[in-house]
Amino acid sequence: MTLPPIQLNLCGKRFSVAYELTGSRDDAWNKAQDICVEQTIEFPADLLPGGDIAACIVGQVESFAPVRPGYFEAVISFALEIAHQELIQLLNVVFGNISLKPGMRVQRLILPPELLAAFRGPRFGRAGLRSLLGVPERPLLCTAIKPLGLSVQQLAHLAYQFALGGIDVIKDDHGLGNQVFAPFRERVQRCAEAVDRANRQTGLHCIYVPSIIAPADQLLERALWAKQAGAGGLLVAPGLNGFDSMRQLADDDRLALPIFSHPSLQGSFVTHPDDGISPYALFGQIARLAGADASIFPHQGGRFSFSLEDCRAVADGTRVPMAHVQPIFPTPAGGMTLERVSDMLNVYGREVVLLIGGSLHRHGPDLVKTCSTFRESVESW
Amino acid sequence: MTLPPIQLNLCGKRFSVAYELTGSRDDAWNKAQDICVEQTIEFPADLLPGGDIAACIVGQVESFAPVRPGYFEAVISFALEIAHQELIQLLNVVFGNISLKPGMRVQRLILPPELLAAFRGPRFGRAGLRSLLGVPERPLLCTAIKPLGLSVQQLAHLAYQFALGGIDVIKDDHGLGNQVFAPFRERVQRCAEAVDRANRQTGLHCIYVPSIIAPADQLLERALWAKQAGAGGLLVAPGLNGFDSMRQLADDDRLALPIFSHPSLQGSFVTHPDDGISPYALFGQIARLAGADASIFPHQGGRFSFSLEDCRAVADGTRVPMAHVQPIFPTPAGGMTLERVSDMLNVYGREVVLLIGGSLHRHGPDLVKTCSTFRESVESW
Repeated sequence: MTLPPIQLNLCGKRFSVAYELTGSRDDAWNKAQDICVEQTIEFPADLLPGGDIAACIVGQVESFAPVRPGYFEAVISFALEIAHQELIQLLNVVFGNISLKPGMRVQRLILPPELLAAFRGPRFGRAGLRSLLGVPERPLLCTAIKPLGLSVQQLAHLAYQFALGGIDVIKDDHGLGNQVFAPFRERVQRCAEAVDRANRQTGLHCIYVPSIIAPADQLLERALWAKQAGAGGLLVAPGLNGFDSMRQLADDDRLALPIFSHPSLQGSFVTHPDDGISPYALFGQIARLAGADASIFPHQGGRFSFSLEDCRAVADGTRVPMAHVQPIFPTPAGGMTLERVSDMLNVYGREVVLLIGGSLHRHGPDLVKTCSTFRESVESW
Repeated sequence: MTLPPIQLNLCGKRFSVAYELTGSRDDAWNKAQDICVEQTIEFPADLLPGGDIAACIVGQVESFAPVRPGYFEAVISFALEIAHQELIQLLNVVFGNISLKPGMRVQRLILPPELLAAFRGPRFGRAGLRSLLGVPERPLLCTAIKPLGLSVQQLAHLAYQFALGGIDVIKDDHGLGNQVFAPFRERVQRCAEAVDRANRQTGLHCIYVPSIIAPADQLLERALWAKQAGAGGLLVAPGLNGFDSMRQLADDDRLALPIFSHPSLQGSFVTHPDDGISPYALFGQIARLAGADASIFPHQGGRFSFSLEDCRAVADGTRVPMAHVQPIFPTPAGGMTLERVSDMLNVYGREVVLLIGGSLHRHGPDLVKTCSTFRESVESW
């Protein structure tokens, strides 16, 4: 380049990301240097024009230290302006290109108030969701209407029974889309009505949370339709529709509904401990930035392969102080059973949404009674 | 469940996915059975109501065979109606929840014409992009304007020089968003003008392709603005904005612009060979379904870790017959240099977009001449 030195006046205000890097000290150091360039200029460092691009735009290694044999942590800072207060651009800078390189994992985001100011975060958070549900202290109860293939009438009847039994949050199974056997609009209307009817009988404040996994050009429309039909929350899958679409739904004042984030298609970020994004950052920090009020993830020992350490890390990420961005509910799930309730409560404490799905059907035909048992086991904890 | 047998009239029409599964024969077989349930009913099989849910909604293993020691391929079919002609729901069924389970990889999609009929696919494809660029036969040339931190004027001057030198496609570096030093609207307008000015001098049909990595609620607006400002294509990152958002942009008749798919944030799908989605399916088949006309991915031996086998697989996925869904251009990139041109052409043949970025600046200050050299090396191949 034959450019004069460039002055950008951007030096000084930065955010940081802690990456875990594998290999020898030299390997890991080279990876840290690579991230600094790959996530910013993508340009041969020796060809840069002078001035602020090299000094401010290129990422900077703020600290570098071994964490255990073969693993190093590098904290790398980036100029705030590169992410310019957009979630989509923040994710692009944090992990966009280097997602393609093995041996680099996003461990945690370190975001200053100047950047966090751009994000509303969860509209409800833990306190807001508790207030909406009228449950000030105990762990929250959640289940899903399933299996796929049931009719709207059958799904609505399930929702009715679950609500009568004292479940707080009844969500669509995430496989329910707009199938002919249970079309979206009819399903949402009937299930919302069923839960409302049960609430009038019980005096409780159960919410029905339909799945808003939708074509990009129908996402907002389906959410608005669900709201007017009486939905009490939205189940969103940021791995499918994009994290910023979830943020858009959370921020929309016409909706003003709690957001339940589903992990569909996010698994590849977390299946290998040496790469991807840590459960702490993905299901905790990033879910919060993207507006989730509850973050669903697989609990240890169910149908998936999360460790207890992963689960505790998610819980930490849902509550770590992030300026005004509220803490949200960890929502462990994935093959959970009534028998696991006390285990789960011992891990998460009372600030949790317990999601137990299909196994509620294993306790006989009286679902109302099964749900009451679920509730009692939590209340007596 | 105490439900009567359910008749859905959905049996018979199915699509399939080939999964590669790790482990012993028993392990792999159990994984195949697990996929059948996890991606559909997520419900204890022994509690299902009778009738069509078990017979048709649950996935079915169509074939199961060893592929090499410790690896098996299971072809699993799903009722067409589960994905009900939405890309988002297709991805949800193909890999949603099982993305969270190790040792399962999507190898390829096997989609019948009845399902493909729902997808327009690439609007231009290889033939359409060649026609737009006025390049009937030779490999196409692409570069990116960078580094991040340059002003609009500097970026536009780069674009002008690249276009004068005979590059076919000049794209934004994917890190360019809406930063203060090169705001989106001003950048797009000036770069489009610069390329247009060069085209009037050269008589060529170079296109400028701005990056449309944007907040969800600004994505379409930025694309429409770019179109009216003279952009000749759109750079989209489906890993960030969602595959269905790319599909939406590709399908929009008001835009009618070729789509260049960028791999940002898609890396975790492909970094481990035992999990995720194969490069063939991800950068080939799924990119096509989602409307890309060119699919950018890291070529072997550059800054990333793709093998030659991965690269050849992507190329295969970009052209495998998929009913009316057109073949698209593999666009290998990531640290490519002029010295690698003949290597790349030997791998991909003439149906390729060669993307060489920052290293074009390594050949002295006369970028027009460097681009001419790039072009001549391709024309003389």
